[in-house]
Amino acid sequence: MISTEAGSAGIVETRYFTFAEPPNELELECGRKLGPITLAYETYGEMNQDKSNCILILHALSGDAHVAGKNHSEDTKFGWWDNMVGPDKAFDTRKYCVICSNVIGGCKGSTGPGSIDPTTDQPYALNFPMATVADMVTAQKALIDFLGIKQLMCVVGGSLGGMQALQWAVTYPDSVRLAMPIATTARLSAQGIALDAVGRHAIMADPNWNGGNYYGGPAPSRGLGIARMIGHITYLSDGSMHQKFGRDLQDKAAPEYDFVTEFQVESYLKHKGESFVDRFDANSYLYITKAMDYFDLSQPSGLLRKELSGVKAAFLVISFSSDWLFPTHMSKEIVSALRRNNVDVSYAEIQSDYGHDAFLLEVDTLSSLIINFLEYADPRNGHIDEY
Amino acid sequence: MISTEAGSAGIVETRYFTFAEPPNELELECGRKLGPITLAYETYGEMNQDKSNCILILHALSGDAHVAGKNHSEDTKFGWWDNMVGPDKAFDTRKYCVICSNVIGGCKGSTGPGSIDPTTDQPYALNFPMATVADMVTAQKALIDFLGIKQLMCVVGGSLGGMQALQWAVTYPDSVRLAMPIATTARLSAQGIALDAVGRHAIMADPNWNGGNYYGGPAPSRGLGIARMIGHITYLSDGSMHQKFGRDLQDKAAPEYDFVTEFQVESYLKHKGESFVDRFDANSYLYITKAMDYFDLSQPSGLLRKELSGVKAAFLVISFSSDWLFPTHMSKEIVSALRRNNVDVSYAEIQSDYGHDAFLLEVDTLSSLIINFLEYADPRNGHIDEY
Repeated sequence: MISTEAGSAGIVETRYFTFAEPPNELELECGRKLGPITLAYETYGEMNQDKSNCILILHALSGDAHVAGKNHSEDTKFGWWDNMVGPDKAFDTRKYCVICSNVIGGCKGSTGPGSIDPTTDQPYALNFPMATVADMVTAQKALIDFLGIKQLMCVVGGSLGGMQALQWAVTYPDSVRLAMPIATTARLSAQGIALDAVGRHAIMADPNWNGGNYYGGPAPSRGLGIARMIGHITYLSDGSMHQKFGRDLQDKAAPEYDFVTEFQVESYLKHKGESFVDRFDANSYLYITKAMDYFDLSQPSGLLRKELSGVKAAFLVISFSSDWLFPTHMSKEIVSALRRNNVDVSYAEIQSDYGHDAFLLEVDTLSSLIINFLEYADPRNGHIDEY
Repeated sequence: MISTEAGSAGIVETRYFTFAEPPNELELECGRKLGPITLAYETYGEMNQDKSNCILILHALSGDAHVAGKNHSEDTKFGWWDNMVGPDKAFDTRKYCVICSNVIGGCKGSTGPGSIDPTTDQPYALNFPMATVADMVTAQKALIDFLGIKQLMCVVGGSLGGMQALQWAVTYPDSVRLAMPIATTARLSAQGIALDAVGRHAIMADPNWNGGNYYGGPAPSRGLGIARMIGHITYLSDGSMHQKFGRDLQDKAAPEYDFVTEFQVESYLKHKGESFVDRFDANSYLYITKAMDYFDLSQPSGLLRKELSGVKAAFLVISFSSDWLFPTHMSKEIVSALRRNNVDVSYAEIQSDYGHDAFLLEVDTLSSLIINFLEYADPRNGHIDEY
């Protein structure tokens, strides 16, 4: 499954797990049924005999199952968290078996709005049922069961991945020993919903979107690009944008007073928007942002403390000082609710200028926190008293 | 010119001043010439004999010359800063003659991209030359000269209006006794440029935009609406959005799991976007946001202190604690640069949850600061030593 290179997770193959074949479709939170369901996933490192060393990594909005290494020897890029996953890295693939699972609703090999609806033989498009974060996790549980894993050593993720990690610990308390929600929230803020909504408006305003029925024709690339630009602004901090771009002009010394891209920051955003449309499906962007909007672990009671009362995992919660999309106070809310339930929870606010993207960039600080947590917090290691 | 009602500036007429008639066009910062130029403006209260009691109010991106009172007795709404301008209000029209001037590049009665280009008899559209904040102020100086005012008692504005107030004090140091830049900056940040750029992309991606040539046909309303939604998110704070909307659903108790507007905050933004397109021209949105992007008072030297060295006005600089579009550190930068030039400068950071919009909403706090400043800081009042 994996061939190691020095310092790299090596060449890894994306695998596909299919379940919920009709008539045994999965009933989703919205009440509708979905099946068959395919989940794309990758694994790194070896399971030990009792499969007690498995770490499930969950990705953010635009991520995929390819967390580390390369899929082919010719690949020029490594997986999205390659600096964290591999031999001797934070998620040490010589000790742990790392699994990274994609999400339903996505477009990276799992069942989503671009998949063929077996009842019509056409892409689902907007007939795809709404898949919430809880539904994503339910599908991942089927994968973990299929892999024969009784209990995950750890669930970990940043942003949307952190929402999934939280949901795992709540829905399957006996299946998770450690949980690491990073740069995330128990419920998206009004500002977060607003930003997502504007991105969706941009997609749906693109004439190519065509009510979601664009498969086989031109995709709503301009709309999706604009949505991605909005996203990118929220992933960086004011300070990091200032340090990275300031007010510098792109490829010119003096302004030309036109509407062609002129400041470096405009050029950067335009490039980020344009490159995104080649690798992401606009309808998946609609579905996944909506899943984030609906995410609210404090429901149904409205009391986060109460809804977290069944959690059994030990927690490491991490936030970043300059993250304004998932600000520190959101992580503190999680920590507070867990502590009031006597959950074993560590919390770190990492000082960083990188904004929300810090969870991908603050590798050294994250690594030392995570290595210690995995080593000492796991009750199976017998260290729990010393922790 | 004005008939007073109790507590109101009364019925006021918008006036139009036209100058720079060919062949005496105004040369703009971009090197191109513009003329004739019309500026819409309104006046409130009476000038004293030596015209030393005149206050020039400058508006924000979507504002206009109609700052207070009503244009017609049947109007249902008052001007945009009506709670600040009128008899016994902060800008007391029984003491002061208040003038509010629109900007070139706009669409509220002044010459802008929707105006007729006399050389083609067609709307300028994107043939309109770029008009910077300095150009807006140059045009306003022609208006003030026309009105026979040698020296303004005060220039004041929030946001883009604050940029104009700063520019006035720099370009015409002998023409301004007091300056009040509110919730503004000496140079837009990379994040601010990025947000403006995404709004412009949304407008230019609308097929109705048609390279700017949409006059007489359908306007790029969806694109402009999206730009306005982005703007509105930046005008509110995370906290004010939470207080105002939280995660409440619009007109329903439980989610319906679709892409129809579902959360209250989405509905609010959608309404704000839709209502804006009836009263604003998309090309003006492009031009004015670009003017804000270009605004950088630290140029050409790159040293704000140096560029502010000729300023003679006394200053009151005001920022708001939760304003993340023009954060407090931007106002402090202005204050610091002024103080190093021994300019008489007062500074207030107002604690407010309202974000950038606080300059329109924190009426009581603003009023008491402004009343005192106008009364005691004006050297013509002979109070300067006591201030």
